[in-house]
Amino acid sequence: MVDGVRIIGIPGIPRITEGDDVGEVAARCMEAAGIEMEEGDLVVVAQTVVSRSEGCTVRLDTVNPSGRALSYAGITGKDPRIVEVVLGESTGVIHAGPGFLLCETRHGFVCANAGVDSSNVEEGMVTTLPPDPDGSAARISRSLGKAAGFAVPVIVSDSEGRPFRRGSVGVALGVAGISPVRSLAGVPDFFGRQLQTTEVALADQICSAANLVMGESGEGIPVAIARGVPPGRGEGIGGLLYEEDVFKEALGSDEG
Amino acid sequence: MVDGVRIIGIPGIPRITEGDDVGEVAARCMEAAGIEMEEGDLVVVAQTVVSRSEGCTVRLDTVNPSGRALSYAGITGKDPRIVEVVLGESTGVIHAGPGFLLCETRHGFVCANAGVDSSNVEEGMVTTLPPDPDGSAARISRSLGKAAGFAVPVIVSDSEGRPFRRGSVGVALGVAGISPVRSLAGVPDFFGRQLQTTEVALADQICSAANLVMGESGEGIPVAIARGVPPGRGEGIGGLLYEEDVFKEALGSDEG
Repeated sequence: MVDGVRIIGIPGIPRITEGDDVGEVAARCMEAAGIEMEEGDLVVVAQTVVSRSEGCTVRLDTVNPSGRALSYAGITGKDPRIVEVVLGESTGVIHAGPGFLLCETRHGFVCANAGVDSSNVEEGMVTTLPPDPDGSAARISRSLGKAAGFAVPVIVSDSEGRPFRRGSVGVALGVAGISPVRSLAGVPDFFGRQLQTTEVALADQICSAANLVMGESGEGIPVAIARGVPPGRGEGIGGLLYEEDVFKEALGSDEG
Repeated sequence: MVDGVRIIGIPGIPRITEGDDVGEVAARCMEAAGIEMEEGDLVVVAQTVVSRSEGCTVRLDTVNPSGRALSYAGITGKDPRIVEVVLGESTGVIHAGPGFLLCETRHGFVCANAGVDSSNVEEGMVTTLPPDPDGSAARISRSLGKAAGFAVPVIVSDSEGRPFRRGSVGVALGVAGISPVRSLAGVPDFFGRQLQTTEVALADQICSAANLVMGESGEGIPVAIARGVPPGRGEGIGGLLYEEDVFKEALGSDEG
């Protein structure tokens, strides 16, 4: 356990544009930086570069806000065109307040502005979340695996705010080759009793750890290796989502 | 950046009991394991051992549940004596559902069961959160600093669930010598524009990273070093709490 966990930021990732093979680019930058992947490594990739590589961008001057978008723009103070893009990405609005719109996305994520972001993209444009983040992670994993010669699990990460606490933390949007949730069912505590907390959001915690070197991608480190984390074997990101969420229920939803 | 961030779990921490100097014990275990603290290291300590060292435990057979506790016990299905302890730790109940009670604690944290935990404590007992987690962190920091010969920032961590996503993640309850929130105000994105996300919950992300080696403390690693994280200079945990939280407002609160 003295080796512990290491998070290694990959320097020199160039500005990613549509059609780029993010895994291939990341592997090349690792090589250039003298960083070798090891078996067991996970790779975390920021959503912003994944979205850009997949062309998940919208030119705001092509957007025509609906009445519903104009109404939410009034509540939030946001650009009505951005609100229109947000609503298009959402299956419902959970809460609206000054500066933000809490939405449920088509993937089932509940997050501010449905993940629509005007950072790290050209003026007059926004990025949207990748339509199938597990699929994105799988494609990047394949490219990295080809370069490494062994399987490389991948997490597509985002930074999100959350209720009740200030500041953003890392969360996983998509995974490949890793179980996003670790079950502690059956793990005894110090006193031999069953632990009260039985599900750990492993992938989210890895994204928060990766953020410690990635910072916001504006700082230029959109890819990091997480070394020494036992990944488990896993299915998709759905493991991190509730089928029924008491808060969503309590807050209600405007499904437009 | 190739060195990145390292999280090093401290093996061999014995069962902590009331009156133990957690910092002193941790320093001793580091020495025994051949782990040397370096300047710039942060140390993360799990709440459960901090609470135990401070005697923040309650024998359930001394607890007499009130009518309000019995009513919430009916809703949640929890032991009415545990609910009584939870209510005693809380300034309000934000939400109650089967199996859980979302409370605001006297510190201002909004968390399940006000942090009252029956894991990692003797049968028939529960732990409560330390009354002044920043003070706890400061005391541990002083002991570690004495052993190391330089200042050692400390975070008292907990694992908590959150709305909208399954599984627990690390959160900070108290800090000493580190700013819990990192501001990105003025940091340009790839395109030279101001980042949309301007506050990062640094201390929470460090706790999630530490959880990757600590696991749940039942696995025996309640202390970890985080190496390579620029700590900034900081005040207390209050930086992570909203003065007004839209969700708290939207959900209402039963202040008993």
